[in-house]
Amino acid sequence: VSGEHPLDEAQILAFAKQFDPQPFHLDHEAAKATLFGGLAASGWHTAAVTMRLLVGGGLPLAGGIIGAGGEISWPKPTRPGDVLHVETEVVSVTPSASRPDRGRVVVRSQTLNQHGDVLQQSTYKLVVPRKAV
Amino acid sequence: VSGEHPLDEAQILAFAKQFDPQPFHLDHEAAKATLFGGLAASGWHTAAVTMRLLVGGGLPLAGGIIGAGGEISWPKPTRPGDVLHVETEVVSVTPSASRPDRGRVVVRSQTLNQHGDVLQQSTYKLVVPRKAV
Repeated sequence: VSGEHPLDEAQILAFAKQFDPQPFHLDHEAAKATLFGGLAASGWHTAAVTMRLLVGGGLPLAGGIIGAGGEISWPKPTRPGDVLHVETEVVSVTPSASRPDRGRVVVRSQTLNQHGDVLQQSTYKLVVPRKAV
Repeated sequence: VSGEHPLDEAQILAFAKQFDPQPFHLDHEAAKATLFGGLAASGWHTAAVTMRLLVGGGLPLAGGIIGAGGEISWPKPTRPGDVLHVETEVVSVTPSASRPDRGRVVVRSQTLNQHGDVLQQSTYKLVVPRKAV
């Protein structure tokens, strides 16, 4: 269980002002005329909140969560009032061929709101410390 | 030209406290013993700053920058004192088969620091409004 993260309008606006100042992330009225049809959080805000949920217990890794990269998609917009949670699945664990002190873990996650809508799908490649056996 | 975005330690700590509270993003001393070998920004912070640079002129699209998803990787950590800039390239432009009012644009971007180190590589699929001809 990874907890929940409510996202209100003030948080959405604060993130957008700093990192993604576009009309559909900043203004209800202006957002209506856009593809979003209303105010929506920046996808990078959804990604950042997802990370917060993973770090907060959604992905318990002793060495921490260090991403080398991955794939991300946002099937639906995150809206003011959404309460986010994350579901994760370990896809693979591979020792590094070149570095005996580390390995690679591939993790898939879904970020959902309280209605079960999938807001974000991601697959991450993580670098993890590896202990000698 | 998309401008530059300096990233100092205070910004790195503030983002990490809110979204990615792990030792290597929060504390110089604790970071030394980790795979990062010193304080580094959250990859999601690098991604958010990259978006700010794209919105600030790095990717001029009339309908705004609306990402459906993409791939992202962080070849090197972003460090305190780094000054980020972004280089973008349009890979493809495709009208939607099902929705005549929109199309898909694929964009590749690199986020670099003042030393020319590549901190982030991304490929985004963007949804764009399309005008009738």
